[in-house]
Amino acid sequence: MPETRGSFLLLSGGMDSTTLLWWMQAQGVDEIHTVAVDYGQRHRAELDCGARLSAEGGAQSHRVLQLDLTQLGGNPLTDADFAVPSANEDNQIGTVVPFRNMLFVTLSAALAETQGILDIYLSPVRDDHESYRDCRREFYDLLEKTLRLGATRHAEFRVHTPFVEMWKKEVVRVGIELGVPYARTHTCYEGIRPACGKCDACVERLAAFAANCTVDPLPYK
Amino acid sequence: MPETRGSFLLLSGGMDSTTLLWWMQAQGVDEIHTVAVDYGQRHRAELDCGARLSAEGGAQSHRVLQLDLTQLGGNPLTDADFAVPSANEDNQIGTVVPFRNMLFVTLSAALAETQGILDIYLSPVRDDHESYRDCRREFYDLLEKTLRLGATRHAEFRVHTPFVEMWKKEVVRVGIELGVPYARTHTCYEGIRPACGKCDACVERLAAFAANCTVDPLPYK
Repeated sequence: MPETRGSFLLLSGGMDSTTLLWWMQAQGVDEIHTVAVDYGQRHRAELDCGARLSAEGGAQSHRVLQLDLTQLGGNPLTDADFAVPSANEDNQIGTVVPFRNMLFVTLSAALAETQGILDIYLSPVRDDHESYRDCRREFYDLLEKTLRLGATRHAEFRVHTPFVEMWKKEVVRVGIELGVPYARTHTCYEGIRPACGKCDACVERLAAFAANCTVDPLPYK
Repeated sequence: MPETRGSFLLLSGGMDSTTLLWWMQAQGVDEIHTVAVDYGQRHRAELDCGARLSAEGGAQSHRVLQLDLTQLGGNPLTDADFAVPSANEDNQIGTVVPFRNMLFVTLSAALAETQGILDIYLSPVRDDHESYRDCRREFYDLLEKTLRLGATRHAEFRVHTPFVEMWKKEVVRVGIELGVPYARTHTCYEGIRPACGKCDACVERLAAFAANCTVDPLPYK
Protein backbone atom coordinates (compact mmCIF):
# COMPACT_ATOMS: atom_id res chain seq x y z
CA MET A 1 0.00 0.00 0.00
CA PRO A 2 1.61 3.30 -1.08
CA GLU A 3 2.26 6.09 1.42
CA THR A 4 -0.46 8.72 1.64
CA ARG A 5 0.28 12.43 1.78
CA GLY A 6 -0.66 15.74 0.23
CA SER A 7 -3.97 17.35 -0.70
CA PHE A 8 -5.89 18.14 -3.85
CA LEU A 9 -7.67 21.47 -4.26
CA LEU A 10 -10.25 21.96 -6.99
CA LEU A 11 -9.11 25.36 -8.25
CA SER A 12 -11.23 26.99 -10.92
CA GLY A 13 -9.54 30.37 -10.77
CA GLY A 14 -12.68 31.98 -9.36
CA MET A 15 -12.90 33.94 -6.11
CA ASP A 16 -13.92 31.13 -3.78
CA SER A 17 -11.42 28.46 -4.80
CA THR A 18 -8.59 30.99 -5.01
CA THR A 19 -9.38 32.21 -1.51
CA LEU A 20 -9.36 28.59 -0.40
CA LEU A 21 -5.82 28.12 -1.72
CA TRP A 22 -4.61 31.12 0.28
CA TRP A 23 -6.58 29.90 3.32
CA MET A 24 -5.03 26.41 3.07
CA GLN A 25 -1.55 27.94 2.94
CA ALA A 26 -2.37 30.08 5.98
CA GLN A 27 -3.56 26.93 7.79
CA GLY A 28 -0.27 25.20 6.99
CA VAL A 29 -1.79 22.44 4.83
CA ASP A 30 1.12 20.41 3.40
CA GLU A 31 1.77 19.69 -0.27
CA ILE A 32 -1.18 21.29 -1.98
CA HIS A 33 -1.75 20.10 -5.54
CA THR A 34 -4.34 22.03 -7.53
CA VAL A 35 -6.69 20.41 -10.03
CA ALA A 36 -8.81 22.21 -12.61
CA VAL A 37 -11.34 20.57 -14.89
CA ASP A 38 -11.55 21.38 -18.56
CA TYR A 39 -15.22 20.56 -18.98
CA GLY A 40 -15.68 22.48 -22.20
CA GLN A 41 -16.30 25.84 -20.58
CA ARG A 42 -17.01 28.59 -23.09
CA HIS A 43 -14.23 30.72 -21.73
CA ARG A 44 -10.74 29.36 -21.64
CA ALA A 45 -9.71 32.41 -19.60
CA GLU A 46 -10.94 30.57 -16.52
CA LEU A 47 -8.44 27.74 -17.06
CA ASP A 48 -5.58 30.20 -17.61
CA CYS A 49 -6.48 32.01 -14.38
CA GLY A 50 -6.45 28.73 -12.48
CA ALA A 51 -2.96 27.81 -13.68
CA ARG A 52 -1.52 31.24 -12.88
CA LEU A 53 -3.13 31.46 -9.45
CA SER A 54 -1.95 27.95 -8.56
CA ALA A 55 1.65 29.05 -9.08
CA GLU A 56 1.15 32.41 -7.40
CA GLY A 57 -0.48 30.69 -4.42
CA GLY A 58 2.45 28.34 -3.99
CA ALA A 59 0.82 25.04 -4.94
CA GLN A 60 3.20 22.14 -5.61
CA SER A 61 1.63 21.29 -8.95
CA HIS A 62 -1.32 22.12 -11.18
CA ARG A 63 -3.15 19.61 -13.28
CA VAL A 64 -6.00 20.03 -15.77
CA LEU A 65 -8.34 17.05 -16.04
CA GLN A 66 -10.52 16.53 -19.10
CA LEU A 67 -14.21 15.85 -18.57
CA ASP A 68 -16.44 16.91 -21.43
CA LEU A 69 -19.74 18.13 -20.03
CA THR A 70 -20.86 19.64 -23.33
CA GLN A 71 -21.94 16.13 -24.38
CA LEU A 72 -24.68 16.31 -21.76
CA GLY A 73 -26.57 18.87 -23.79
CA GLY A 74 -27.45 22.53 -23.93
CA ASN A 75 -26.25 24.50 -20.97
CA PRO A 76 -25.24 28.16 -21.04
CA LEU A 77 -21.94 27.49 -19.23
CA THR A 78 -20.70 25.22 -22.00
CA ASP A 79 -22.78 26.00 -25.06
CA ALA A 80 -21.96 29.17 -26.99
CA ASP A 81 -25.46 29.15 -28.55
CA PHE A 82 -27.16 29.65 -25.19
CA ALA A 83 -27.67 33.06 -23.66
CA VAL A 84 -26.30 33.38 -20.14
CA PRO A 85 -29.19 34.14 -17.78
CA SER A 86 -29.02 37.45 -16.00
CA ALA A 87 -29.06 37.55 -12.22
CA ASN A 88 -32.12 36.16 -10.52
CA GLU A 89 -32.78 33.06 -8.48
CA ASP A 90 -35.24 31.41 -10.90
CA ASN A 91 -32.92 31.55 -13.85
CA GLN A 92 -29.88 30.32 -11.98
CA ILE A 93 -31.05 26.73 -12.39
CA GLY A 94 -30.26 27.18 -16.10
CA THR A 95 -26.55 27.39 -15.31
CA VAL A 96 -26.52 24.02 -13.54
CA VAL A 97 -24.79 21.05 -15.12
CA PRO A 98 -26.27 18.10 -13.18
CA PHE A 99 -23.81 16.49 -10.77
CA ARG A 100 -20.97 18.70 -11.92
CA ASN A 101 -19.35 18.98 -8.49
CA MET A 102 -19.87 15.28 -7.85
CA LEU A 103 -18.16 14.40 -11.12
CA PHE A 104 -15.27 16.79 -10.41
CA VAL A 105 -14.72 15.43 -6.91
CA THR A 106 -15.01 11.79 -8.02
CA LEU A 107 -12.62 12.25 -10.94
CA SER A 108 -10.19 14.01 -8.60
CA ALA A 109 -10.57 11.18 -6.10
CA ALA A 110 -9.73 8.64 -8.82
CA LEU A 111 -6.53 10.53 -9.62
CA ALA A 112 -5.88 11.05 -5.91
CA GLU A 113 -6.13 7.35 -5.21
CA THR A 114 -3.48 6.55 -7.83
CA GLN A 115 -1.18 9.11 -6.14
CA GLY A 116 -1.82 8.19 -2.51
CA ILE A 117 -3.67 11.44 -1.79
CA LEU A 118 -6.70 11.24 0.49
CA ASP A 119 -7.67 14.87 1.12
CA ILE A 120 -9.74 16.78 -1.40
CA TYR A 121 -10.69 20.42 -0.89
CA LEU A 122 -13.32 22.43 -2.73
CA SER A 123 -15.11 25.68 -2.11
CA PRO A 124 -18.91 25.60 -2.21
CA VAL A 125 -20.37 28.58 -0.33
CA ARG A 126 -23.63 29.20 1.45
CA ASP A 127 -25.05 31.47 -1.25
CA ASP A 128 -25.34 28.44 -3.52
CA HIS A 129 -27.28 26.18 -1.15
CA GLU A 130 -30.69 27.04 -2.58
CA SER A 131 -29.97 26.73 -6.27
CA TYR A 132 -27.37 23.99 -6.16
CA ARG A 133 -28.26 21.05 -3.96
CA ASP A 134 -24.75 19.65 -4.40
CA CYS A 135 -23.28 22.68 -2.63
CA ARG A 136 -24.51 21.68 0.83
CA ARG A 137 -22.40 19.92 3.42
CA GLU A 138 -24.87 17.08 3.90
CA PHE A 139 -24.25 16.20 0.26
CA TYR A 140 -20.47 16.14 0.77
CA ASP A 141 -20.83 14.04 3.91
CA LEU A 142 -22.63 11.43 1.85
CA LEU A 143 -20.25 11.74 -1.10
CA GLU A 144 -17.32 11.24 1.27
CA LYS A 145 -18.92 8.06 2.65
CA THR A 146 -19.55 6.81 -0.88
CA LEU A 147 -15.93 7.41 -1.88
CA ARG A 148 -14.73 5.58 1.22
CA LEU A 149 -16.94 2.62 0.45
CA GLY A 150 -15.95 2.46 -3.22
CA ALA A 151 -12.22 3.12 -2.95
CA THR A 152 -9.93 0.34 -4.09
CA ARG A 153 -6.81 0.64 -2.00
CA HIS A 154 -7.45 3.43 0.50
CA ALA A 155 -10.66 4.04 2.35
CA GLU A 156 -10.10 7.20 4.35
CA PHE A 157 -10.93 9.87 1.79
CA ARG A 158 -11.82 13.25 3.24
CA VAL A 159 -13.76 15.85 1.29
CA HIS A 160 -13.12 19.27 2.84
CA THR A 161 -15.47 22.21 2.28
CA PRO A 162 -14.30 24.78 4.83
CA PHE A 163 -16.37 27.64 3.32
CA VAL A 164 -19.63 25.74 2.97
CA GLU A 165 -21.39 27.60 5.79
CA MET A 166 -19.90 30.98 4.89
CA TRP A 167 -21.55 33.57 2.67
CA LYS A 168 -19.51 34.74 -0.29
CA LYS A 169 -19.08 38.13 1.38
CA GLU A 170 -17.45 36.40 4.37
CA VAL A 171 -15.14 34.49 2.05
CA VAL A 172 -14.08 37.77 0.47
CA ARG A 173 -13.42 39.23 3.91
CA VAL A 174 -11.12 36.30 4.66
CA GLY A 175 -9.44 36.69 1.28
CA ILE A 176 -8.82 40.40 1.69
CA GLU A 177 -7.09 39.72 5.00
CA LEU A 178 -4.97 37.02 3.36
CA GLY A 179 -4.02 39.22 0.41
CA VAL A 180 -5.74 37.16 -2.30
CA PRO A 181 -5.03 38.82 -5.69
CA TYR A 182 -8.69 39.21 -6.64
CA ALA A 183 -7.79 41.33 -9.66
CA ARG A 184 -6.48 38.16 -11.27
CA THR A 185 -9.38 35.83 -10.45
CA HIS A 186 -12.07 35.06 -13.00
CA THR A 187 -15.79 35.28 -12.33
CA CYS A 188 -17.83 36.66 -15.26
CA TYR A 189 -20.06 34.09 -17.01
CA GLU A 190 -19.57 36.06 -20.22
CA GLY A 191 -15.85 35.45 -19.87
CA ILE A 192 -14.87 38.95 -20.87
CA ARG A 193 -12.36 41.42 -19.47
CA PRO A 194 -13.36 44.00 -18.44
CA ALA A 195 -16.08 41.85 -16.84
CA CYS A 196 -19.69 42.42 -17.90
CA GLY A 197 -20.89 43.37 -14.41
CA LYS A 198 -24.38 42.14 -15.28
CA CYS A 199 -24.41 38.36 -15.25
CA ASP A 200 -25.39 36.50 -12.13
CA ALA A 201 -21.77 35.75 -11.23
CA CYS A 202 -20.62 39.37 -11.61
CA VAL A 203 -23.58 40.70 -9.62
CA GLU A 204 -22.89 38.27 -6.76
CA ARG A 205 -19.22 39.17 -6.80
CA LEU A 206 -19.80 42.93 -6.75
CA ALA A 207 -22.27 42.52 -3.89
CA ALA A 208 -19.71 40.53 -1.88
CA PHE A 209 -17.15 43.33 -2.18
CA ALA A 210 -19.76 46.02 -1.48
CA ALA A 211 -20.78 44.18 1.71
CA ASN A 212 -17.16 44.55 2.85
CA CYS A 213 -17.17 48.27 2.00
CA THR A 214 -14.42 47.52 -0.50
CA VAL A 215 -14.09 48.05 -4.22
CA ASP A 216 -13.56 44.95 -6.36
CA PRO A 217 -10.12 45.43 -8.00
CA LEU A 218 -11.35 43.73 -11.19
CA PRO A 219 -12.05 46.07 -14.12
CA TYR A 220 -15.70 46.20 -15.24
CA LYS A 221 -17.29 47.57 -18.37
CA MET B 1 -40.51 19.87 -14.11
CA PRO B 2 -40.25 17.59 -17.16
CA GLU B 3 -42.02 14.24 -17.28
CA THR B 4 -39.90 11.29 -16.19
CA ARG B 5 -39.84 7.99 -18.03
CA GLY B 6 -37.49 5.40 -19.47
CA SER B 7 -34.35 3.71 -18.18
CA PHE B 8 -30.66 3.83 -18.84
CA LEU B 9 -28.60 0.65 -19.02
CA LEU B 10 -24.81 0.77 -18.87
CA LEU B 11 -24.04 -1.66 -21.69
CA SER B 12 -20.40 -2.51 -22.28
CA GLY B 13 -21.02 -5.35 -24.70
CA GLY B 14 -19.71 -7.89 -22.19
CA MET B 15 -21.60 -10.93 -20.92
CA ASP B 16 -23.14 -9.44 -17.81
CA SER B 17 -24.49 -6.18 -19.21
CA THR B 18 -25.76 -7.91 -22.35
CA THR B 19 -27.59 -10.46 -20.24
CA LEU B 20 -29.05 -7.58 -18.25
CA LEU B 21 -30.50 -6.05 -21.43
CA TRP B 22 -32.23 -9.32 -22.30
CA TRP B 23 -33.38 -9.68 -18.68
CA MET B 24 -34.84 -6.14 -18.66
CA GLN B 25 -36.75 -6.87 -21.84
CA ALA B 26 -38.06 -10.11 -20.31
CA GLN B 27 -39.17 -8.13 -17.24
CA GLY B 28 -41.05 -5.68 -19.45
CA VAL B 29 -38.94 -2.62 -18.53
CA ASP B 30 -40.16 0.27 -20.71
CA GLU B 31 -38.03 2.40 -23.00
CA ILE B 32 -34.55 1.08 -22.42
CA HIS B 33 -31.79 3.40 -23.57
CA THR B 34 -28.29 1.94 -23.53
CA VAL B 35 -25.20 3.94 -22.62
CA ALA B 36 -21.60 2.91 -23.21
CA VAL B 37 -18.56 4.81 -22.04
CA ASP B 38 -15.60 5.41 -24.28
CA TYR B 39 -13.01 5.67 -21.51
CA GLY B 40 -10.02 5.06 -23.72
CA GLN B 41 -10.18 1.26 -23.61
CA ARG B 42 -7.40 -0.41 -25.56
CA HIS B 43 -9.85 -2.40 -27.62
CA ARG B 44 -12.47 -0.57 -29.60
CA ALA B 45 -14.11 -3.94 -30.35
CA GLU B 46 -15.87 -3.60 -27.00
CA LEU B 47 -17.61 -0.40 -28.10
CA ASP B 48 -18.66 -1.93 -31.42
CA CYS B 49 -20.12 -4.95 -29.61
CA GLY B 50 -22.11 -2.67 -27.32
CA ALA B 51 -23.68 -0.78 -30.20
CA ARG B 52 -24.62 -3.95 -32.10
CA LEU B 53 -26.02 -5.71 -29.05
CA SER B 54 -28.07 -2.65 -28.09
CA ALA B 55 -29.87 -2.82 -31.44
CA GLU B 56 -30.18 -6.60 -31.37
CA GLY B 57 -31.58 -6.44 -27.84
CA GLY B 58 -34.25 -3.94 -28.86
CA ALA B 59 -33.04 -0.87 -26.96
CA GLN B 60 -34.64 2.43 -28.00
CA SER B 61 -31.32 4.18 -28.43
CA HIS B 62 -27.60 3.76 -27.84
CA ARG B 63 -25.29 6.51 -26.75
CA VAL B 64 -21.52 6.56 -26.24
CA LEU B 65 -20.32 8.97 -23.56
CA GLN B 66 -16.72 10.21 -23.51
CA LEU B 67 -14.80 9.99 -20.26
CA ASP B 68 -11.05 9.71 -20.65
CA LEU B 69 -9.70 7.49 -17.88
CA THR B 70 -6.27 7.16 -19.53
CA GLN B 71 -5.41 10.55 -18.01
CA LEU B 72 -5.49 8.93 -14.57
CA GLY B 73 -2.31 7.05 -15.33
CA GLY B 74 -0.99 3.61 -16.12
CA ASN B 75 -3.60 0.89 -16.06
CA PRO B 76 -3.59 -2.22 -18.22
CA LEU B 77 -7.19 -1.69 -19.34
CA THR B 78 -6.38 1.61 -20.98
CA ASP B 79 -2.63 1.68 -21.51
CA ALA B 80 -1.20 -0.34 -24.38
CA ASP B 81 2.23 -0.32 -22.71
CA PHE B 82 1.00 -2.34 -19.74
CA ALA B 83 0.83 -6.10 -19.79
CA VAL B 84 -2.59 -7.49 -18.90
CA PRO B 85 -2.25 -9.57 -15.71
CA SER B 86 -3.10 -13.23 -16.09
CA ALA B 87 -5.81 -14.73 -13.94
CA ASN B 88 -5.27 -14.62 -10.20
CA GLU B 89 -6.84 -12.68 -7.38
CA ASP B 90 -3.76 -10.68 -6.39
CA ASN B 91 -3.15 -9.31 -9.82
CA GLN B 92 -6.74 -8.37 -10.49
CA ILE B 93 -6.29 -5.17 -8.51
CA GLY B 94 -4.07 -4.02 -11.38
CA THR B 95 -7.06 -3.87 -13.70
CA VAL B 96 -8.96 -1.48 -11.44
CA VAL B 97 -9.46 2.13 -12.50
CA PRO B 98 -10.42 3.80 -9.21
CA PHE B 99 -14.09 4.80 -9.04
CA ARG B 100 -14.73 3.72 -12.61
CA ASN B 101 -18.25 2.46 -11.95
CA MET B 102 -19.03 5.49 -9.81
CA LEU B 103 -17.92 7.81 -12.60
CA PHE B 104 -19.92 5.89 -15.20
CA VAL B 105 -23.08 5.92 -13.09
CA THR B 106 -22.71 9.58 -12.15
CA LEU B 107 -22.07 10.68 -15.73
CA SER B 108 -25.08 8.63 -16.85
CA ALA B 109 -27.16 10.20 -14.08
CA ALA B 110 -26.16 13.67 -15.29
CA LEU B 111 -27.35 12.82 -18.79
CA ALA B 112 -30.40 11.06 -17.37
CA GLU B 113 -31.40 14.11 -15.40
CA THR B 114 -31.36 16.30 -18.52
CA GLN B 115 -33.66 13.75 -20.21
CA GLY B 116 -36.07 13.10 -17.34
CA ILE B 117 -34.79 9.55 -16.80
CA LEU B 118 -34.51 8.34 -13.20
CA ASP B 119 -33.71 4.63 -13.50
CA ILE B 120 -30.16 3.48 -14.13
CA TYR B 121 -29.27 -0.19 -14.50
CA LEU B 122 -25.85 -1.79 -14.37
CA SER B 123 -24.54 -5.31 -13.93
CA PRO B 124 -21.98 -5.86 -11.18
CA VAL B 125 -21.86 -9.53 -10.17
CA ARG B 126 -20.91 -11.34 -6.98
CA ASP B 127 -17.60 -12.64 -8.35
CA ASP B 128 -16.30 -9.07 -8.29
CA HIS B 129 -17.14 -8.24 -4.68
CA GLU B 130 -13.71 -9.09 -3.33
CA SER B 131 -11.53 -7.30 -5.84
CA TYR B 132 -13.80 -4.38 -6.64
CA ARG B 133 -15.36 -2.71 -3.64
CA ASP B 134 -17.59 -0.64 -5.92
CA CYS B 135 -19.32 -3.81 -7.13
CA ARG B 136 -21.22 -4.40 -3.90
CA ARG B 137 -24.81 -3.40 -3.31
CA GLU B 138 -24.05 -1.43 -0.16
CA PHE B 139 -21.95 0.84 -2.35
CA TYR B 140 -24.82 1.38 -4.80
CA ASP B 141 -27.25 2.05 -1.95
CA LEU B 142 -25.02 4.88 -0.83
CA LEU B 143 -24.36 6.12 -4.37
CA GLU B 144 -28.12 6.21 -4.98
CA LYS B 145 -28.63 8.29 -1.83
CA THR B 146 -25.84 10.65 -2.90
CA LEU B 147 -27.39 11.11 -6.36
CA ARG B 148 -30.77 11.82 -4.78
CA LEU B 149 -29.29 14.41 -2.49
CA GLY B 150 -27.27 16.09 -5.24
CA ALA B 151 -29.81 16.05 -8.07
CA THR B 152 -30.95 19.41 -9.34
CA ARG B 153 -34.50 18.91 -10.52
CA HIS B 154 -35.41 15.31 -9.71
CA ALA B 155 -34.53 13.50 -6.54
CA GLU B 156 -35.82 9.97 -7.00
CA PHE B 157 -32.94 8.36 -8.85
CA ARG B 158 -32.82 4.59 -8.64
CA VAL B 159 -29.65 2.60 -9.30
CA HIS B 160 -30.61 -0.98 -10.17
CA THR B 161 -28.12 -3.85 -9.88
CA PRO B 162 -30.30 -6.96 -10.26
CA PHE B 163 -27.34 -9.33 -10.66
CA VAL B 164 -25.28 -8.04 -7.75
CA GLU B 165 -25.86 -11.10 -5.55
CA MET B 166 -25.59 -13.59 -8.44
CA TRP B 167 -22.43 -15.41 -9.45
CA LYS B 168 -21.39 -15.02 -13.06
CA LYS B 169 -22.31 -18.65 -13.71
CA GLU B 170 -25.86 -17.90 -12.54
CA VAL B 171 -26.02 -14.87 -14.83
CA VAL B 172 -24.96 -17.09 -17.74
CA ARG B 173 -27.68 -19.59 -16.81
CA VAL B 174 -30.28 -16.80 -16.98
CA GLY B 175 -28.82 -15.60 -20.27
CA ILE B 176 -28.86 -19.02 -21.89
CA GLU B 177 -32.54 -19.35 -21.01
CA LEU B 178 -33.22 -15.91 -22.50
CA GLY B 179 -31.29 -16.64 -25.68
CA VAL B 180 -28.55 -14.04 -25.21
CA PRO B 181 -26.23 -14.16 -28.27
CA TYR B 182 -23.07 -14.78 -26.27
CA ALA B 183 -21.08 -15.45 -29.44
CA ARG B 184 -21.31 -11.72 -30.14
CA THR B 185 -20.41 -10.41 -26.68
CA HIS B 186 -16.90 -9.23 -25.86
CA THR B 187 -14.92 -10.32 -22.83
CA CYS B 188 -11.19 -10.83 -23.50
CA TYR B 189 -8.89 -8.21 -21.90
CA GLU B 190 -6.51 -8.74 -24.82
CA GLY B 191 -9.31 -7.67 -27.15
CA ILE B 192 -8.60 -10.31 -29.73
CA ARG B 193 -10.87 -12.66 -31.70
CA PRO B 194 -10.48 -15.59 -31.35
CA ALA B 195 -10.27 -14.67 -27.64
CA CYS B 196 -7.01 -15.40 -25.79
CA GLY B 197 -8.61 -17.79 -23.29
CA LYS B 198 -5.88 -16.96 -20.77
CA CYS B 199 -6.56 -13.53 -19.31
CA ASP B 200 -8.52 -13.17 -16.12
CA ALA B 201 -11.69 -12.20 -17.98
CA CYS B 202 -11.53 -15.16 -20.40
CA VAL B 203 -10.81 -17.62 -17.59
CA GLU B 204 -13.80 -16.37 -15.57
CA ARG B 205 -16.01 -16.54 -18.62
CA LEU B 206 -15.01 -20.08 -19.56
CA ALA B 207 -15.56 -21.22 -15.98
CA ALA B 208 -19.06 -19.72 -15.98
CA PHE B 209 -20.03 -21.71 -19.07
CA ALA B 210 -18.37 -24.87 -17.78
CA ALA B 211 -20.35 -24.56 -14.54
CA ASN B 212 -23.49 -24.69 -16.66
CA CYS B 213 -22.22 -27.77 -18.54
CA THR B 214 -22.34 -25.68 -21.70
CA VAL B 215 -19.74 -24.68 -24.24
CA ASP B 216 -19.06 -20.98 -24.69
CA PRO B 217 -20.02 -20.22 -28.31
CA LEU B 218 -17.18 -17.67 -28.59
CA PRO B 219 -14.16 -18.85 -30.61
CA TYR B 220 -10.91 -19.17 -28.62
CA LYS B 221 -7.32 -19.51 -29.75
